[in-house]
Amino acid sequence: MAYIQVVLLLSLLLALTSCFLTFAADPASLQDFCVADSNNQGCLASSFAVKLNGFACKNPAWVQANDFAFSGLHNPGNTGNPFGSAITPVTVAQIPALNTLGISMVRIDYAPWGVVVPHYHPRATEIITVIEGSLEVGFVTSNPDNRLISKTLQKGDVFVFPVGLVHYQRNIGNMNAVTISGLNSQNPGVITIGNAVFDSKPDISTDILAKAFQVNKNIVQQIKGKF
Amino acid sequence: MAYIQVVLLLSLLLALTSCFLTFAADPASLQDFCVADSNNQGCLASSFAVKLNGFACKNPAWVQANDFAFSGLHNPGNTGNPFGSAITPVTVAQIPALNTLGISMVRIDYAPWGVVVPHYHPRATEIITVIEGSLEVGFVTSNPDNRLISKTLQKGDVFVFPVGLVHYQRNIGNMNAVTISGLNSQNPGVITIGNAVFDSKPDISTDILAKAFQVNKNIVQQIKGKF
Amino acid sequence: MAYIQVVLLLSLLLALTSCFLTFAADPASLQDFCVADSNNQGCLASSFAVKLNGFACKNPAWVQANDFAFSGLHNPGNTGNPFGSAITPVTVAQIPALNTLGISMVRIDYAPWGVVVPHYHPRATEIITVIEGSLEVGFVTSNPDNRLISKTLQKGDVFVFPVGLVHYQRNIGNMNAVTISGLNSQNPGVITIGNAVFDSKPDISTDILAKAFQVNKNIVQQIKGKF
Amino acid sequence: MAYIQVVLLLSLLLALTSCFLTFAADPASLQDFCVADSNNQGCLASSFAVKLNGFACKNPAWVQANDFAFSGLHNPGNTGNPFGSAITPVTVAQIPALNTLGISMVRIDYAPWGVVVPHYHPRATEIITVIEGSLEVGFVTSNPDNRLISKTLQKGDVFVFPVGLVHYQRNIGNMNAVTISGLNSQNPGVITIGNAVFDSKPDISTDILAKAFQVNKNIVQQIKGKF
Amino acid sequence: MAYIQVVLLLSLLLALTSCFLTFAADPASLQDFCVADSNNQGCLASSFAVKLNGFACKNPAWVQANDFAFSGLHNPGNTGNPFGSAITPVTVAQIPALNTLGISMVRIDYAPWGVVVPHYHPRATEIITVIEGSLEVGFVTSNPDNRLISKTLQKGDVFVFPVGLVHYQRNIGNMNAVTISGLNSQNPGVITIGNAVFDSKPDISTDILAKAFQVNKNIVQQIKGKF
Amino acid sequence: MAYIQVVLLLSLLLALTSCFLTFAADPASLQDFCVADSNNQGCLASSFAVKLNGFACKNPAWVQANDFAFSGLHNPGNTGNPFGSAITPVTVAQIPALNTLGISMVRIDYAPWGVVVPHYHPRATEIITVIEGSLEVGFVTSNPDNRLISKTLQKGDVFVFPVGLVHYQRNIGNMNAVTISGLNSQNPGVITIGNAVFDSKPDISTDILAKAFQVNKNIVQQIKGKF
Repeated sequence: MAYIQVVLLLSLLLALTSCFLTFAADPASLQDFCVADSNNQGCLASSFAVKLNGFACKNPAWVQANDFAFSGLHNPGNTGNPFGSAITPVTVAQIPALNTLGISMVRIDYAPWGVVVPHYHPRATEIITVIEGSLEVGFVTSNPDNRLISKTLQKGDVFVFPVGLVHYQRNIGNMNAVTISGLNSQNPGVITIGNAVFDSKPDISTDILAKAFQVNKNIVQQIKGKF
Repeated sequence: MAYIQVVLLLSLLLALTSCFLTFAADPASLQDFCVADSNNQGCLASSFAVKLNGFACKNPAWVQANDFAFSGLHNPGNTGNPFGSAITPVTVAQIPALNTLGISMVRIDYAPWGVVVPHYHPRATEIITVIEGSLEVGFVTSNPDNRLISKTLQKGDVFVFPVGLVHYQRNIGNMNAVTISGLNSQNPGVITIGNAVFDSKPDISTDILAKAFQVNKNIVQQIKGKF
Repeated sequence: MAYIQVVLLLSLLLALTSCFLTFAADPASLQDFCVADSNNQGCLASSFAVKLNGFACKNPAWVQANDFAFSGLHNPGNTGNPFGSAITPVTVAQIPALNTLGISMVRIDYAPWGVVVPHYHPRATEIITVIEGSLEVGFVTSNPDNRLISKTLQKGDVFVFPVGLVHYQRNIGNMNAVTISGLNSQNPGVITIGNAVFDSKPDISTDILAKAFQVNKNIVQQIKGKF
Repeated sequence: MAYIQVVLLLSLLLALTSCFLTFAADPASLQDFCVADSNNQGCLASSFAVKLNGFACKNPAWVQANDFAFSGLHNPGNTGNPFGSAITPVTVAQIPALNTLGISMVRIDYAPWGVVVPHYHPRATEIITVIEGSLEVGFVTSNPDNRLISKTLQKGDVFVFPVGLVHYQRNIGNMNAVTISGLNSQNPGVITIGNAVFDSKPDISTDILAKAFQVNKNIVQQIKGKF
Repeated sequence: MAYIQVVLLLSLLLALTSCFLTFAADPASLQDFCVADSNNQGCLASSFAVKLNGFACKNPAWVQANDFAFSGLHNPGNTGNPFGSAITPVTVAQIPALNTLGISMVRIDYAPWGVVVPHYHPRATEIITVIEGSLEVGFVTSNPDNRLISKTLQKGDVFVFPVGLVHYQRNIGNMNAVTISGLNSQNPGVITIGNAVFDSKPDISTDILAKAFQVNKNIVQQIKGKF
Repeated sequence: MAYIQVVLLLSLLLALTSCFLTFAADPASLQDFCVADSNNQGCLASSFAVKLNGFACKNPAWVQANDFAFSGLHNPGNTGNPFGSAITPVTVAQIPALNTLGISMVRIDYAPWGVVVPHYHPRATEIITVIEGSLEVGFVTSNPDNRLISKTLQKGDVFVFPVGLVHYQRNIGNMNAVTISGLNSQNPGVITIGNAVFDSKPDISTDILAKAFQVNKNIVQQIKGKF
């Protein structure tokens, strides 16, 4: 019985110890692949995943074809939300073999006039192609120009959003639209301007935002209230 | 008149001089973007493009939305060839803004039972999704294991071919198939095993290939004859 | 006379041709240094600078100590503006030797209660130290957490803003404040949220922004009007 | 007794747990060196080595000069095999200190007319010098040119095989030949065309290979049978 | 009791095992940040820190603003030493959040005529600004030129020491001087010429140094004796 | 006649303009290879070479096998000098195809008891093997340990000098010795401690060096006099 207790206790200790570690691999890989190890990733909860600059590698002998695969990208996302858009990402969180390989994919669905609101990817350039529908897309260059480079895309058009620049997409038709994108990071990250600025936890002080957008505090608080 | 002659001569000199230069930009970009300069790229012929580790940047003030765009990826390629497949690439050669941004896209069409024969990309990992049809895909790990990791993909499935590993795709249905891939290089490169080994210009000596494949020279010459 | 005309014309041609080229060097340098060549940089105007992923190198034999230097960082900037802050950057634009070396510096002055409004650097992490005064600083993590990590800094405190994350600084005292930062890029880039979203040239459509911030279009237009 | 059982059980648990992890360091090192930790590498078997994008670092205080060394590169390899060549690699598997340092070395012996059959290194450029004998060497460029760039090398000649390109070497004399190469990866990887295509485990389907090499299936099966 | 013994033993085993591991993250980060995990870093002693190419990441949910901060850079260092200078570094050892972010900072104090003797940083370029006083600074280029590029700096001047080059600073005034530098590595490393050559543990043979500096052995031994 | 004058003048202008440019390619290449263009490199003199972070690429159609080759590494260097050693480098200066490929090679000859005096490579790790003779080799770690890691090497031994660390080699036999090294940079750079510190042009002030080595100025001047 002591035996069992000890085993349990130690398993827990082990789990806690190894789970607190997180490592991360670089895109310049040093082996054929480094499939993220789900035993480590998921030990107690996904937030305890072992990572550094990526995740620890699964023993290559135990790697399966499924570690390189994901299913369901043909399924439309649910666009029944205020933005009228739905994102289906395929990053290292969905395909563990993407760890250290520096690429990911995303499907986006757009209801008629649906919008992917202004956002940016801190770690990836995005190349996007229209599978169905018509979109207006655009991105803004950095200071001091803040130039908007935008274009109407039809089915079969391809466009590029450079890494780190704010961009958006809008369905400009009365039918649904669908896009597929490639992004050159296993974990591109998404920073949505509205959420980062008006919906952080905790809030950014109202008077800082009032200065930033040169409006009075009531308007800032009104916007904050919508998130 | 001398004036005009000199101008012509010097324009030529200029063209020749600047065209011989080729520079190349790294994916770790140092500005918002560096659109490949078509004046340099195409000066006398595309092979004279100015590049180093990528291409020289167009003056940002002259950049247009079209520099970031390509049209026609919805159009099926012509699969009327011995392999029953067609590749439509969208790399820096098609979208000059991809220069230094480290990503590209490709559409592939497959006739029934069409094959993308064994090949590899020396500079990119590929993430592929099936838009239409069913495929068998696979890749082989490096020495000494040479393990084949393969899988049958259906519409909406996503798979990863790690950088530098030999892989192939085969339509396993009686209808056409279509895939879209993202690759994490502006110029991934393609090395088709058959062409590299049996169809180089000039040829690799028959007796080297006979040793490599452990067959007699007649068979090597027979294969060479097919390319 | 024809001689002179031709020379002038050709000098112009040369200037135009070489000036259109822009190359860019990577932080992983391949020589001791690669001082940006001001003859190329400034040929007709700074926007015509030769660059790729950075700038072309000046002949090392002609490099001077002054190419590695900048003066005046002890001078307070003029904070007489709506934000009450002033930025004095020292990047590759000020010190040509920073080309390919992957670092830069910035001094910021803050009037009492002055703010550096929410912004991010797409190409650099920033390490900041307070030379004079007290500041509130903070940054927001990416989706889905949007966690604000903030702190009050006193003289002599040091803080880190990770690359690509939205951050701000605010003087929380009644005296002027001064900070010095290091950033790990020769050209970090600055994207100010307000300007990128509400003041791009041309504008992002009001209805996209209304959706993004979940407010009615009047408010969006009111904010746009302030920039 | 329970004590001992528990210890054994837990040692096993520990071994299993820590051994499943594999991390890997990048060539852009962040310390003087990061000697691969053999306690981790070899815990149960070499395939259980801890790695991510390289291996975990041994405590620097315990590092020995021997961790940076390997002996025996003057010993001829055994060329008594169908190819008449022998490879003696010195990678991170032989010198743990190569971990994160981005370089390795290899000696190759060639019997008279011995061949190193067409292969490539997915992660390294190779610089080779002839210590003894005369060789024909060559490499093939990527699509669409598939140009063979080849040369006869004598003692003291040096040649370069660019990363990811198919290359071969052949002794063209009646005496033994010896080469020494440097490769810019701690683990360059080797993909031998014959093995990757005709000897993977499991096999690539015969009809795919028949299409790839445009021969009938009998020939493919004949080649497969030789491996 | 056996229970407790086992727990203790196993805790020790765990500690030893996990502490021997050291991983390290690359500046090209794959997440918002990867705060070095002090539980791992400090497990038995700081020299047992878990690292590879950097340190393992702390669970992001447990990260605090203090992990991004350091205090006291306004405090003068103690220049009461033979060199008359004092270094206060702020690297990943002081701010765990610098892990994988590729930057650090340093304050240097100089007594009148105090010197930072010739040294170099193997992993970082340094950008330095004078907060107080006047300095002579200089660096030497690589072989074969060994050119000294030096300059007198006044308050507010900024200068750059390229990565890997030997440099020095000297207070050229009768008052104290202070500088702040940014360095583009989380752990730049410092190699002081005098210590590396004349004070290594164990010593470099006197006759090697006598040849290196072309002096007789007595002088070498005299210099060694001063360290 | 005016025609000819103009042509000459403009050719000169062109030569001057293009020669002043220097670009440089990164090891992460974006094409199969980027052979350094000797027309640019050598236009007026080698110091006018076009480079950025490496050199501009020769038109691939004009590349020759000889661009990838160098001859004569079997020839002993002349060790008739005070150090009793001779270096034969094979870098991008000898093989233009090494441009952007990140590797080089060096042969070193050692007279009996000859020494390669303490030096370091700011841009490369070195892997060295002994072809003939016996050597003592060593390197010193960075501050604060300054640990000397040294070893006696025999024929066939291999050793590693990590990037940026001071190292030396000494023939410890009465016969000549020969080594071959690989270095992971196209242009590793060499900084010889003696030359950088005591023989820069112009000199580092004697009193700085006196402080650095804690000796009186006479000794510093004596050492300077030997270089």
